[in-house]
Amino acid sequence: MKVLSQSTAFGGMQGVYSHESEACQCEMTFAVFVPPQAIREPCPVVWYLSGLTCTHANVMDKGEYRRMAAELGLIIVCPDTSPRGNDVPDELTNWQMGKGAGFYVDATETPWSTNFRMYTYVTEELPAFVSQHFRIDMSRQGIFGHSMGGHGAMTIALKNPDRFRSCSAFAPIVEPSTADWSVGAFEKYLGDDRSSWRQYDACALVNDGARFPEFLIDQGKADAYLETGLRPWLFEEAIKGTGIELTLRMHERYDHSYFFISTFMDEHLKWHADRLS
Amino acid sequence: MKVLSQSTAFGGMQGVYSHESEACQCEMTFAVFVPPQAIREPCPVVWYLSGLTCTHANVMDKGEYRRMAAELGLIIVCPDTSPRGNDVPDELTNWQMGKGAGFYVDATETPWSTNFRMYTYVTEELPAFVSQHFRIDMSRQGIFGHSMGGHGAMTIALKNPDRFRSCSAFAPIVEPSTADWSVGAFEKYLGDDRSSWRQYDACALVNDGARFPEFLIDQGKADAYLETGLRPWLFEEAIKGTGIELTLRMHERYDHSYFFISTFMDEHLKWHADRLS
Repeated sequence: MKVLSQSTAFGGMQGVYSHESEACQCEMTFAVFVPPQAIREPCPVVWYLSGLTCTHANVMDKGEYRRMAAELGLIIVCPDTSPRGNDVPDELTNWQMGKGAGFYVDATETPWSTNFRMYTYVTEELPAFVSQHFRIDMSRQGIFGHSMGGHGAMTIALKNPDRFRSCSAFAPIVEPSTADWSVGAFEKYLGDDRSSWRQYDACALVNDGARFPEFLIDQGKADAYLETGLRPWLFEEAIKGTGIELTLRMHERYDHSYFFISTFMDEHLKWHADRLS
Repeated sequence: MKVLSQSTAFGGMQGVYSHESEACQCEMTFAVFVPPQAIREPCPVVWYLSGLTCTHANVMDKGEYRRMAAELGLIIVCPDTSPRGNDVPDELTNWQMGKGAGFYVDATETPWSTNFRMYTYVTEELPAFVSQHFRIDMSRQGIFGHSMGGHGAMTIALKNPDRFRSCSAFAPIVEPSTADWSVGAFEKYLGDDRSSWRQYDACALVNDGARFPEFLIDQGKADAYLETGLRPWLFEEAIKGTGIELTLRMHERYDHSYFFISTFMDEHLKWHADRLS
């Protein structure tokens, strides 16, 4: 593990690290906040998955999670959103594909399938790696994210209900198979056979029988992507009769930015802490 | 006033604006957070001055001031650190001079004196401008800042004790006339006659009779600039016998970054609110 930076914050430690990823066949960077409680005992972890165009740094800089994570004793791990480096394929003029747009899937199509294996990276390789380097109680894991990362968090929770005890999302893409900013990427990463897309689509997963006890979703009503990309009402519809509980809060005047995310960050961290402790 | 962006945050509004500055002879950008209380009544304002290499955006993104400012009902105004634009002189390879390094002085030397009039901009032009566009109670003003901006806040408070009711600083440069990263800039902005530097040096101002009732300073002990640039003990020494009160807190393990600033932001805002309400 390469240490790129470490700074004391709120009595804990915000670090940025990198390692050689086998899943993604490149060097991957991630951020970890360790609360002061981890000096005494292993702490629960909450994974934060970021949205399109982001790296590990956006939420680290703008998410305002450290104060409450230090108070609640939560480790926060923030992976990157895609493989990186000169050898990784990309579409330079398309922010919805390639670097910064991994969509937390394992690509099956050429040329993407060599590096774009973010599902395996986030659910297997990185957890195994960080559990070796930080004092994490891996029996207590939560996951959340924003937009594309909200999609990632929800699909990963639905597919791994035994591993995660809590899941929440800020403005998630709930049905990427039909959202305008993800269909193109899904075609290129996963191919034309749309049945293979269903494992990465929260609504389709629920329809196919996947279950997770409860979700918290916050969504701004002034979010420019609400109608074409996010559409949380589709998930509300999908869970009807399934026993899945959804706390969906629609907020007047809030947009898609980190100003929105940071406003509700404390409540999300409390949501996770309540279910992890 | 040009509106560059506005986002709802913590029930208030974080905006970025620009205007044509007469003092700086260029377009200047600044950020304003307006708390929800401003809907009902004019609110006190706290000015935040940033450090070397920063713009208005660093503290807006990483300072984590909105939650507490919304709770306390404080307007936060964050100016840029220098004039900007292609017509403004600069030293491209020197981050301690020119753009991003205005040092909150009114330059008297060629070629800097046309644009680098940040003292007049921050103390006169911008206050007059924002008071026209936001619901500010200008009888209740506080000022704080980081590093070069801590120097700015302290010197401005010392020179304008009737205007400001509160002043605090994160890791301020307390004696820029002798600190290694400011002497070169002072020579170029203000000339060789060091007596003209004293009006922009907190320690010299106090020695020359300037007074402000009390200061809060937080300083990290792991700050790489502590010994050569910051040296808060010089200010501690300067105020002896003056009646000026100083709360100087030295923090183990904290560095010069916004991880440090954000950790103590809440306490600084409470310091100001206590003195403004």
